[in-house]
Amino acid sequence: MPVAGIVVEYNPMHNGHCYHIQKTKEKTGADTVVAVMSGHFLQRGEPAIVNKWARTRMALQNGVDLLLELPVVYSTQSARLFAFGSVATLDALGLVDVLCFGSEKGDLGSLMQLTDLIAEPPALLQTELEKELEKGLAYPAAFAAALRSYVLQTKELDPDLVNHPNNMLGLEYLHALRKLKSPIRPYTIQRLAAGYHDVTFTHAEIASATAIRKAIAENRAMNAFLPSVNFDILKQEFDNGRGPVTWNSFTQPLFALIARSTPDDLRSYAHFDDEGLETRIIEALPYVSSVSELIYKVKTRRYTWTRIQRALTALLLGFTKEKLRPLKLDSGPDSIRVLGFTEKGRTLLKKSASTARLPIFTNISENVPAMIDLNIQATTVYSLGFPQSSADNRLREPQIPVVYIKEDF
Amino acid sequence: MPVAGIVVEYNPMHNGHCYHIQKTKEKTGADTVVAVMSGHFLQRGEPAIVNKWARTRMALQNGVDLLLELPVVYSTQSARLFAFGSVATLDALGLVDVLCFGSEKGDLGSLMQLTDLIAEPPALLQTELEKELEKGLAYPAAFAAALRSYVLQTKELDPDLVNHPNNMLGLEYLHALRKLKSPIRPYTIQRLAAGYHDVTFTHAEIASATAIRKAIAENRAMNAFLPSVNFDILKQEFDNGRGPVTWNSFTQPLFALIARSTPDDLRSYAHFDDEGLETRIIEALPYVSSVSELIYKVKTRRYTWTRIQRALTALLLGFTKEKLRPLKLDSGPDSIRVLGFTEKGRTLLKKSASTARLPIFTNISENVPAMIDLNIQATTVYSLGFPQSSADNRLREPQIPVVYIKEDF
Repeated sequence: MPVAGIVVEYNPMHNGHCYHIQKTKEKTGADTVVAVMSGHFLQRGEPAIVNKWARTRMALQNGVDLLLELPVVYSTQSARLFAFGSVATLDALGLVDVLCFGSEKGDLGSLMQLTDLIAEPPALLQTELEKELEKGLAYPAAFAAALRSYVLQTKELDPDLVNHPNNMLGLEYLHALRKLKSPIRPYTIQRLAAGYHDVTFTHAEIASATAIRKAIAENRAMNAFLPSVNFDILKQEFDNGRGPVTWNSFTQPLFALIARSTPDDLRSYAHFDDEGLETRIIEALPYVSSVSELIYKVKTRRYTWTRIQRALTALLLGFTKEKLRPLKLDSGPDSIRVLGFTEKGRTLLKKSASTARLPIFTNISENVPAMIDLNIQATTVYSLGFPQSSADNRLREPQIPVVYIKEDF
Repeated sequence: MPVAGIVVEYNPMHNGHCYHIQKTKEKTGADTVVAVMSGHFLQRGEPAIVNKWARTRMALQNGVDLLLELPVVYSTQSARLFAFGSVATLDALGLVDVLCFGSEKGDLGSLMQLTDLIAEPPALLQTELEKELEKGLAYPAAFAAALRSYVLQTKELDPDLVNHPNNMLGLEYLHALRKLKSPIRPYTIQRLAAGYHDVTFTHAEIASATAIRKAIAENRAMNAFLPSVNFDILKQEFDNGRGPVTWNSFTQPLFALIARSTPDDLRSYAHFDDEGLETRIIEALPYVSSVSELIYKVKTRRYTWTRIQRALTALLLGFTKEKLRPLKLDSGPDSIRVLGFTEKGRTLLKKSASTARLPIFTNISENVPAMIDLNIQATTVYSLGFPQSSADNRLREPQIPVVYIKEDF
């Protein structure tokens, strides 16, 4: 039976995610699921609501068998690098047969056509790309805009394909598979009712993670939308002062970092590519009391919420361009970090000893590769955002054992 | 009548400081006093208990007529640069006639003899200095240790002279005057009962600032030890959520800065000269819950409390060696920043327009010299440590007018 790979963030893991795992198994015939998950800082440039070990426990009790961490230097990037890091991790394990991701229509064919466009951009697409780059957009944003513009002009494909973040991610998964010449076969599953950005509950059991986090922030019930075991895990973390963690948990350190910076200082960080963002941030600072107020004040059509958040994450975590350069993100991760497994996952992990093309770290030893070192730093910074962040309550990554759930779900 | 200059921190200003001003006037015959004061971060590497404008109001209502700010890049340095920046500021005003500082014995003669030693170090002192530098000490600490060792061996001078921080500062004032070939004449006044580091009250009206801050931290009465107007100013600041500010007010940002740093990153900051301090700090971090716990854990005979605090200040304020280098601290301040004046001080300030050898900034305009820019940044960082640090309550330096007390005290 094939082994399926999925790319997740689980912020937090809800019924929609469980449905995705169930459909993955049905569609691909897989009975083992390997997930690569973002750690403490996520693709949209925000901290996770609870820590990665809590989210690993949720995953392992709801159908994931082996959980790998996407290095934080990839998890906080725009779609292309995020997808590349994720797919490269699954690929490097050497035993994942299929990749299954959610999309709006569940139509692999047209996504593949789009991928062709990415691999060999026709003249019109390239012209559009140059136009967007000239506007001052960074490459990933420029490419996405150019692709939208291309699809709208040529009408070869359904414009919905490029209008949805999930589709754009799917496209990048396919592109990464091709770039890696990976033998992993892609599948896509149509997503359920709730939209990616939906903030309200429109369905009795399915809600977006965004809507669930909003309910948590507003102290409204949200237990109908996630497995009860996951609700218990969340509650336990919150009861112990380890969440909910939001951007506003980092107001003081982030503001101090901005306050001590000149525009040039800020431009040395990743995601500060676009002239002007650094000045807007510095100028807004005196008038805002929280990170969310800051983002709201800085935001324009050009500087989207997500772009600002990613830039702030780079600043908080100290990801200067100079620091990221030697990591060569374009060449893929330097290691595979295992956060947890079930019994079935453990068997798979043993097997990977002879198939993996990267060193595997189940626990943290003295000398770890650079990307794992940055994960450890990110964990410490993250747990400084806990409502209770005394030394005892903070997360000391090297001392936290792998999550081992001695049964299968 | 001569104009007297003094160097102060007023953290907070107490009866001992008032005595110093009174004696300064008596001894020098001056009726006008110019003070150069550290802003928000002080010579022993810690944040001030209340902001610089509150401390300016205290000073102006207790005998100081014109209050200048020592740039933060000098106020957070060890004795030599701190003294040089202070004396150079007074000197650059072009109308200060005498400098009067406190010392343990009030004996200018032996301090002058010591200054000779600094200016032309004899062979034995140089040998001792080399020994200390070989131990890995930074220059200022090495010089102080070598001087102590020299005085103890030669017995030419009273060892008490070099065993007290106030004397060491006095020595550096004299050295700075000589280096600047300044026409300012030095005076020294014997300090009153309370020692610099005393933490308890041993006298009915005189206590050290350290003891007063400790009483504030422990919620004990301390109003007997400072003028009632100063007590009222402190109380008002505290009531408004703008103090007391301590190192522990900066635990989250400082810890985040350490967490995201490698030893090499930390070594790029000023005061991380001595191999080993950066590693001790990084290794202590997981086990401490506050900055004071961190310092306590890192402290050794070699890494003193003050040295650690200065290094942490550089980290918090972003003072990398690379950032300080172009400021050329050895050449003196780039400007004179006026925080406040009385009526008499205002007259003096007008006079200085034709005597000052540096540009004077009474209010903050668009383009300010680099050192004032760093003062502004330090103010923002400082006010993020307020118990209530909403945007409304934070200090926006460019919008705060000079303190003008329309009478004389």
